[in-house]
Amino acid sequence: MKQSDDHLIETKVASEALLKGRFLQAFRDSVRLPDGSLGSREYLVHPGAVMVVPLLSDTTAEWRVVLERQFRYPMGRVMIEFPAGKLDPGEDSLACAQRELMEETGYRAVQWARAGVLHPVVSYSTETIDIWFARGLTAGERQLDVGEFLEVFSASVSELLHWCQTGQVTDAKTLTAALWLQNIQNGSWPLTWQTLAARSGIA
Amino acid sequence: MKQSDDHLIETKVASEALLKGRFLQAFRDSVRLPDGSLGSREYLVHPGAVMVVPLLSDTTAEWRVVLERQFRYPMGRVMIEFPAGKLDPGEDSLACAQRELMEETGYRAVQWARAGVLHPVVSYSTETIDIWFARGLTAGERQLDVGEFLEVFSASVSELLHWCQTGQVTDAKTLTAALWLQNIQNGSWPLTWQTLAARSGIA
Repeated sequence: MKQSDDHLIETKVASEALLKGRFLQAFRDSVRLPDGSLGSREYLVHPGAVMVVPLLSDTTAEWRVVLERQFRYPMGRVMIEFPAGKLDPGEDSLACAQRELMEETGYRAVQWARAGVLHPVVSYSTETIDIWFARGLTAGERQLDVGEFLEVFSASVSELLHWCQTGQVTDAKTLTAALWLQNIQNGSWPLTWQTLAARSGIA
Repeated sequence: MKQSDDHLIETKVASEALLKGRFLQAFRDSVRLPDGSLGSREYLVHPGAVMVVPLLSDTTAEWRVVLERQFRYPMGRVMIEFPAGKLDPGEDSLACAQRELMEETGYRAVQWARAGVLHPVVSYSTETIDIWFARGLTAGERQLDVGEFLEVFSASVSELLHWCQTGQVTDAKTLTAALWLQNIQNGSWPLTWQTLAARSGIA
């Protein structure tokens, strides 16, 4: 895996804005392909996002997590997901994770661990989702955005894994979180936790 | 989880085509939100896709799978992924899985099992990816599309899981496949295999 990637790499020749929507920003680039020919690539530019896996209990035999049920318009149905949201301009990933957790669920967390990143659609979006785990939760009032409607509930990790198997959970970020949860719970993929100083993070 | 979802559901009021690209098709719908107010939702319409997890060996202690390295332009780098591709118009999911596996890797498979589906971006794309497992592989000549450049290699499931942990694999569909692989290998999530009749599938 250490060889040169020159036989795979595509380079930008020109870029054209295709769409400046309120939410979607699309581009079409002319690219030089590895064999020297020209091709075109259409893709969305995304500001980046975070997902938060809130652990209600991670010391008992039966770990519990906080989940959401939200109607997803492109899917035409309610999906089970972990809390997530887009970065505000200039916003730090952890600050965004704290904000989204609080706004969507009302919970604040004392300890945070960044597990890694996931890329939901490598073929047509620049979106990167940082994967955060949160524990030491305190319940509070949530502050949903205007036009945001979602339900918060809790489940055990074994329930979540069962829903992944049976198709009740099909959201890719939540499936990725399930992979992490399974391997964290069985001790294979340890996390490095950071404890927030009092009053740090969102005011 | 059996209660009505009326307090979450959004309904279409009007739909406007935002973009008809060569690849990307975007729409903006005006929607009635659960509280009766109006909102707008921008999203991509996608024809659907398949992912194939080709098992080179699934009877020894160390399972091996076929993977690809492909430059993904929106990511600006080479990604490790399972073979995947979009449905052609009217194409059956299994036929697409057989076609993509053969075109991208050269392999044909005798046995196939559909594990489930994943939705890569529930917030802004209708894309659904069917998750197929394939075994009984025979190597042959691959037939890449024009403008398609990718490298095929094999790895053990434990190597793949290690790359998921360390961040060398960040593609959401491949992470989802890793969740399935781990639970199939440990016996938790059994698959139902179908054996193709001789000469069936792609000619």
